[in-house]
Amino acid sequence: MDKLISRRDLEFLLYEVLEVEALTQRERYRDHSRQTFKDILEVAHKIAVEHFATHNKKNDQQEPYFDGEKVHTNPEVKAALEAYRQAGLFAATHDYELGGIQLPYVISTAYGAFFKAANIATASFALLTAGNANVLRKYGSPSQQKKYLLPQLEGRFFGTMCLSEPHAGSSLTDILTRAEPQPDGTYRLNGSKMWISGGDHEISENIVHLVLAKIPGGPPGVKGISLFIVPKFLVGEDGRLGPRNGVKLAGLNHKMGYRGIPNCLLSLEDAVGELVGEPHQGLSYMFTMMNEARIGVGMGAMALAYTGYLHALEYARGRTQGRRLSDKNPASPAVPILQHPDVRRMLLMQKAYAEGSLHLCLYAARLVDEERTAPTPEAAQQAHLLLELLTPVVKGWSSELGLKANELALQVHGGYGYTRDYNVEQFYRDNRLNAIHEGTNGIQALDLLARKVGMQGGAAYKLWVREIERTIAQSRGPGSELKEYADRLEQALNTTTEVTQLLLSKAAEGAVERAFANSFAYLELFGTVTLAWLWLQQAQKSMGREGAFYRGKLEAARYFYHYELDKVPLLAARLRRLDDVFLCPEQDWLAEC
Amino acid sequence: MDKLISRRDLEFLLYEVLEVEALTQRERYRDHSRQTFKDILEVAHKIAVEHFATHNKKNDQQEPYFDGEKVHTNPEVKAALEAYRQAGLFAATHDYELGGIQLPYVISTAYGAFFKAANIATASFALLTAGNANVLRKYGSPSQQKKYLLPQLEGRFFGTMCLSEPHAGSSLTDILTRAEPQPDGTYRLNGSKMWISGGDHEISENIVHLVLAKIPGGPPGVKGISLFIVPKFLVGEDGRLGPRNGVKLAGLNHKMGYRGIPNCLLSLEDAVGELVGEPHQGLSYMFTMMNEARIGVGMGAMALAYTGYLHALEYARGRTQGRRLSDKNPASPAVPILQHPDVRRMLLMQKAYAEGSLHLCLYAARLVDEERTAPTPEAAQQAHLLLELLTPVVKGWSSELGLKANELALQVHGGYGYTRDYNVEQFYRDNRLNAIHEGTNGIQALDLLARKVGMQGGAAYKLWVREIERTIAQSRGPGSELKEYADRLEQALNTTTEVTQLLLSKAAEGAVERAFANSFAYLELFGTVTLAWLWLQQAQKSMGREGAFYRGKLEAARYFYHYELDKVPLLAARLRRLDDVFLCPEQDWLAEC
Repeated sequence: MDKLISRRDLEFLLYEVLEVEALTQRERYRDHSRQTFKDILEVAHKIAVEHFATHNKKNDQQEPYFDGEKVHTNPEVKAALEAYRQAGLFAATHDYELGGIQLPYVISTAYGAFFKAANIATASFALLTAGNANVLRKYGSPSQQKKYLLPQLEGRFFGTMCLSEPHAGSSLTDILTRAEPQPDGTYRLNGSKMWISGGDHEISENIVHLVLAKIPGGPPGVKGISLFIVPKFLVGEDGRLGPRNGVKLAGLNHKMGYRGIPNCLLSLEDAVGELVGEPHQGLSYMFTMMNEARIGVGMGAMALAYTGYLHALEYARGRTQGRRLSDKNPASPAVPILQHPDVRRMLLMQKAYAEGSLHLCLYAARLVDEERTAPTPEAAQQAHLLLELLTPVVKGWSSELGLKANELALQVHGGYGYTRDYNVEQFYRDNRLNAIHEGTNGIQALDLLARKVGMQGGAAYKLWVREIERTIAQSRGPGSELKEYADRLEQALNTTTEVTQLLLSKAAEGAVERAFANSFAYLELFGTVTLAWLWLQQAQKSMGREGAFYRGKLEAARYFYHYELDKVPLLAARLRRLDDVFLCPEQDWLAEC
Repeated sequence: MDKLISRRDLEFLLYEVLEVEALTQRERYRDHSRQTFKDILEVAHKIAVEHFATHNKKNDQQEPYFDGEKVHTNPEVKAALEAYRQAGLFAATHDYELGGIQLPYVISTAYGAFFKAANIATASFALLTAGNANVLRKYGSPSQQKKYLLPQLEGRFFGTMCLSEPHAGSSLTDILTRAEPQPDGTYRLNGSKMWISGGDHEISENIVHLVLAKIPGGPPGVKGISLFIVPKFLVGEDGRLGPRNGVKLAGLNHKMGYRGIPNCLLSLEDAVGELVGEPHQGLSYMFTMMNEARIGVGMGAMALAYTGYLHALEYARGRTQGRRLSDKNPASPAVPILQHPDVRRMLLMQKAYAEGSLHLCLYAARLVDEERTAPTPEAAQQAHLLLELLTPVVKGWSSELGLKANELALQVHGGYGYTRDYNVEQFYRDNRLNAIHEGTNGIQALDLLARKVGMQGGAAYKLWVREIERTIAQSRGPGSELKEYADRLEQALNTTTEVTQLLLSKAAEGAVERAFANSFAYLELFGTVTLAWLWLQQAQKSMGREGAFYRGKLEAARYFYHYELDKVPLLAARLRRLDDVFLCPEQDWLAEC
């Protein structure tokens, strides 16, 4: 068994829960059918198993290195991405005119899960390239699209995102990279960019850096940030590669995990850049890529959780140890550890987190398609708003749950899990990054509470409530065995709304710090209710169905309602208190030691 | 700053809270004084800083290897342990006649924290040797003590514990190693032993393995387990080393962390063993070492949490990023991240966990001294019972909290924390082992709920309640500002007692599986109440005192009562439900994927 992502579960979520087949009625996707989706998922799965999973451990053990001239990566990385390229996956979601096949984004997200589960680092080259390409598709000039977008869709160029600097990670307002306009319309960039995944390598013909920088004389803060294309090799109007640009590799970061993709400190030394769009609008353009990357990070966390779960499950089925608690006879045969309640607890948690997060990620991806192809502008706008609201949840909550799931996968393996002979310790190390990059989870929590839930008068929040209420109503049909869950979810939802109103009104009154000091608890609350909602949907589609698969779904939903949703009153009480435990004005006491 | 363990905090806990100075009134410790304690803590601290911390990263980067003939460790490991030896630390707690200085165990535990924080792997050689020596001190024959105990107290021989086998970790009842009696009174052992830390190396003159094995014809299960001394090199009655014994290194395990100490698979091939004590009593003897090792594991988890916290605190004080939530002016200078509420949350959690666990570990160590030197047999027995009860909590709960603390230390560092240039990612990897070895935390939870709280008619549990009630009463003096905490703790304690009675009565009625299925939640509950009790003690001693140190203690107590003790109703509700979520009789649904 490949133990990446359950294909049965993917099909359940795509077709039975999310009803993705309905997308084929839309003009953009009219050439597609459930069969074309199935075909491409199979192709992707095969490539993930044969080309990505096969060098995942090698990527960890032999990380990229810089010999002073160039970055060396394992040859299997290039081979895997070449297989990905040849299958047309770089362009799959794009227009026919751009070489794509107009595949729904939700399907590309589904197959993306195979690659991330198989090899998160190698998959990241493709993820970053896709996100970079989407920025250029939306905001690039025709010339820029020809020079930098098309080669990325062909998989010949790879893309990066260059936001952070050594002194400015979370705080983009403080970036120092300068872009000086030149008489020929280009800019010369100088500065340092930190944490650049795929920032240098020899895998693709060229690397397209999307760089945030400030044009001298612009407004202060984030309103003075502009976006530039800075290629590794200059590109002529004819598409030919010119000389090396002034983007120097200043060093590689040596990470705890996620090692297969080089993470770089880049030095921009009179690097030639092309402005994307208008000056000083760079951050808003970049959010296209950041939002996509945030969903990608949540997906990655989920995929590692999922494959870790399947590894732990296989181990727990095969490893015998001890007897049932009720069996005191040492002569009885040892039982598979799957039968021990505490092991079952750890497996159920993983299942609930991994399969719930997969649902969340696919739901978010479905909203991307909805935004793009909804029959009315209103419906498109609603999808957009929901996606904005859920993006920090996909990123922040999936990565919290995913790390916990991998911690448990390791625990199920006991001492063996702690050795590098097994895979789970790598998943755990790889997954530790997901709570940090693309905005730490503390930033995600603030984005959710301090920006998203209140935006446009709470419009997105209200849509979220409406969607959940719809699921609740559906669970209350005559004879429904899910009425109890529906009641609990309704109560949790009402609690969340009451707390949200309290916090936003306090913030509006000026008590901003007190209202938002506990934003992480708010993310926990919101994430828990969101997953409970999705598990209720999965339970609805499983109720009354035959077979172990559906029985497992109902058990996971039961676990979630008994052991996760029950945290809501606690989290709400913490938020309601508006205490100042995290706001102590004195600094000394923490510093004393 | 060395950032190991705060010496100020150690002194606070030892002298202000645990009143360790009173031990010097006891006959055994009469030559000691606060000054001798201070002197030895200073010596130990200096050795930890100068000889242990200095090669912690090297130990991680260059792990021990086996060249087919011998195990190579970094030379700094031997040098560090030589400094430890020369300071007399191997024997410090032992009798004068054995070369010790009759130091209280609680003081050796306190200085042990420096070594564990500085270098958990190198410190483990000493920990295992100490535990091994204590078994021989209690159960070894005079000849065995001369041959194997004294050289360990001199630091010339090191010790190991050999319990697990490749197929039997948690389930010792199933070990297969056989010990055949020989005409000369020795035994010949054959079998495989797994996860043996320090199982082979060239650091000490000899290695004393304490090995569990079965003598053919003995009773089944754990009642047929005997304990043997199996030295790496045979030792003559004159103490001279003889030929190599039949203990072969079959391989090294390659771990995620904790790499500096070789972890071995040993093959016993007609190895000569000496029986310790009586046949078939081996497991009870070994529990001397296992209990000590479990407290040592809790200590290690705490020490890593503590040093991780101090690293995160220093980073948070120095790293500037962003502005206060209430400050929207991008021209304001960036503030140290310490000022951001979510960072403060992460620091307070670490502080509460690390300093609370340190208190717990020292309290447990103080019980060891009490058991040994209490003025009455009743008092000694009470200390023994409390220690038995708290051992799984020290091991299981400190290692859960410690790992979480290290996860947060890394998070505070952001991307930098994920790189190997900083120390926190190693602490996190090292600490991941502590939830697994010496009995997984699932085993600890079962030990607590299914054995310890009910033993001797709940005698230990009642002592625990009595001690907590004493602290509560002390917090209710006239004008006490801690009355609110006392009330909350009393409520939590009553809840715990009610739930405990419910679970034990269900088990007594035969519903063993249902009563104990949620034992991990019971560990969470019991551990949380225990730490709240200790934090109330720390708050008592800090109330009304001047200075940042005491202010910090009160803030951490406040955090604990607001954000940790508030989980009690949730955990109690989960336990009361006695549901069968983790007891599903069907296996299929989990297996389906």
